[in-house]
Amino acid sequence: MRKVIIIGSGPAGHTAAIYAGRATMAPLMFEGMMAGGVAAGGQLTTTTEIENFPGFPEGIGGWELMDRMRQQSINCGAEVITETVDAIDLSKRPFTVTVDGTEHQAESIIIATGATAKRLGLPGEETFWNKGMSACAVCDGALPIFRDKPLVVIGGGDSACEEATFLTKFASKVHMLVRRDEFRASKVMGQRAMDNDKIEIHWNSAATEAKGDEFLSHVEIENLKTGEKKTLEANGLFYAIGHKPNTDFLTGQLELDESGYIITKDGTPETSIPGVFACGDVQDKKWRQAITAAGSGCMAALAAEHFLTSR
Amino acid sequence: MRKVIIIGSGPAGHTAAIYAGRATMAPLMFEGMMAGGVAAGGQLTTTTEIENFPGFPEGIGGWELMDRMRQQSINCGAEVITETVDAIDLSKRPFTVTVDGTEHQAESIIIATGATAKRLGLPGEETFWNKGMSACAVCDGALPIFRDKPLVVIGGGDSACEEATFLTKFASKVHMLVRRDEFRASKVMGQRAMDNDKIEIHWNSAATEAKGDEFLSHVEIENLKTGEKKTLEANGLFYAIGHKPNTDFLTGQLELDESGYIITKDGTPETSIPGVFACGDVQDKKWRQAITAAGSGCMAALAAEHFLTSR
Repeated sequence: MRKVIIIGSGPAGHTAAIYAGRATMAPLMFEGMMAGGVAAGGQLTTTTEIENFPGFPEGIGGWELMDRMRQQSINCGAEVITETVDAIDLSKRPFTVTVDGTEHQAESIIIATGATAKRLGLPGEETFWNKGMSACAVCDGALPIFRDKPLVVIGGGDSACEEATFLTKFASKVHMLVRRDEFRASKVMGQRAMDNDKIEIHWNSAATEAKGDEFLSHVEIENLKTGEKKTLEANGLFYAIGHKPNTDFLTGQLELDESGYIITKDGTPETSIPGVFACGDVQDKKWRQAITAAGSGCMAALAAEHFLTSR
Repeated sequence: MRKVIIIGSGPAGHTAAIYAGRATMAPLMFEGMMAGGVAAGGQLTTTTEIENFPGFPEGIGGWELMDRMRQQSINCGAEVITETVDAIDLSKRPFTVTVDGTEHQAESIIIATGATAKRLGLPGEETFWNKGMSACAVCDGALPIFRDKPLVVIGGGDSACEEATFLTKFASKVHMLVRRDEFRASKVMGQRAMDNDKIEIHWNSAATEAKGDEFLSHVEIENLKTGEKKTLEANGLFYAIGHKPNTDFLTGQLELDESGYIITKDGTPETSIPGVFACGDVQDKKWRQAITAAGSGCMAALAAEHFLTSR
């Protein structure tokens, strides 16, 4: 029987492990093995340089940062197992986590399985990922390769409009590719994008290929109504087509919102089940940053510790 | 006219500066000059080694961490001025910040002035601060110098009971010094402390001196009713007598709670005034960790950016 099991190994999971470990809770972490399609360590392992995690003035590689956090969790007393959780039973305490046929029991659970940015799987995507292609404008928009260059944003929702507007700070021009002939975004967000001189909106349009040499330089697009094809010069291609929280294994176990995110009480890691806490992107569709995830991981560990001592 | 002025320079302020800088908001930060009684960089500058900030598996010095964050803010485009804000006018936009007789205007404000742990100013306190004396059990309780050693906690509120209970994980024994003959804490928290075999409660008692050689080794105490004096063996002395948020300059300007903390909408950095955001300990009396402060600083910068682009 464990005091706490942590599921997930991004900044939220590891910060929870560091705090739980230091509080002598001997946490057990299942870091996952390509869970949600990404390596243990989470989405940061798919980025190259991170400039906005405080404490690293020269930036730090995504892999290196997560490797350091993993080592810190272990130094603080966490046990880290490289397996993906298959099933969970939150219907009674102690909670049961099933991994590779083995059942593990815990008095509290911290869920930090994150979310995965949706990708289109365009031809050229694997080649140019992190070499012009990204799923996070806030994270990557300020990189030198995008300064005063034409960029492309794919998507028609609020996030797409917001990210396109954000990118005009850096770009010479931002093309938006919208599949339909109108935005899915709210009126005000859509209007802001349309009013922005630097944004050109391509309605009824989709990308068909990402092209370049070492880095992305062009995006092939197609008008879905007329079949007309065009080549856009573009040093950046940003997907803004949504995220998928990694919560399939939780269906029917605790309250999720309509998109599958875990519902937590505002400003806390508390889920609908006492003793079960959630942190990081699996419960956050607003901020989605490494540092906000880490902060919420700390809260989850402190809340779990408080839960165990106050029973 | 600035897009954003950031007041305060702890992990919250600097993370806000990093994010605002990267979003090309050219933030101006007043880092303070011994504001709230601590150096620029905030409360972390009063600690030695920090083991729980994720990304530093071997720990990092408080000064060094804040120095790195400051450099990162500047690298990201922030201007940092070592002055303390004297007055602020939030009654109309643009907001006005007065520093050393000069008025600075900004379209948005991020307040990250933190809180200061109250201290008693005991004889010996300056000598043994960080050498056995601390104001944060969660931060420092796990340090090797406290393992299996007798410790003293001063205070009679919820925090004091919680911290004393927390410290029993590490300590051989925890003495609680309570000035009155009962707890100010809630019944359940007080009962938990009283039920804990490792906690000895000294009612009507106060510390009079901290003693030791290189590190703290003894605490002199006095019974306030009988005048009886005793010497407790103690390798740790933890103040748990509350914090004072650094909000004196804000009185009458925006909504504060009865203890002087800035009221924010749960889970957001939004204050009672649109365009004014708060992050870190100045609005947080629950978590109070460097990493939670940093996370909220990121939110404040993103919210300010959103506020400015959506007007």
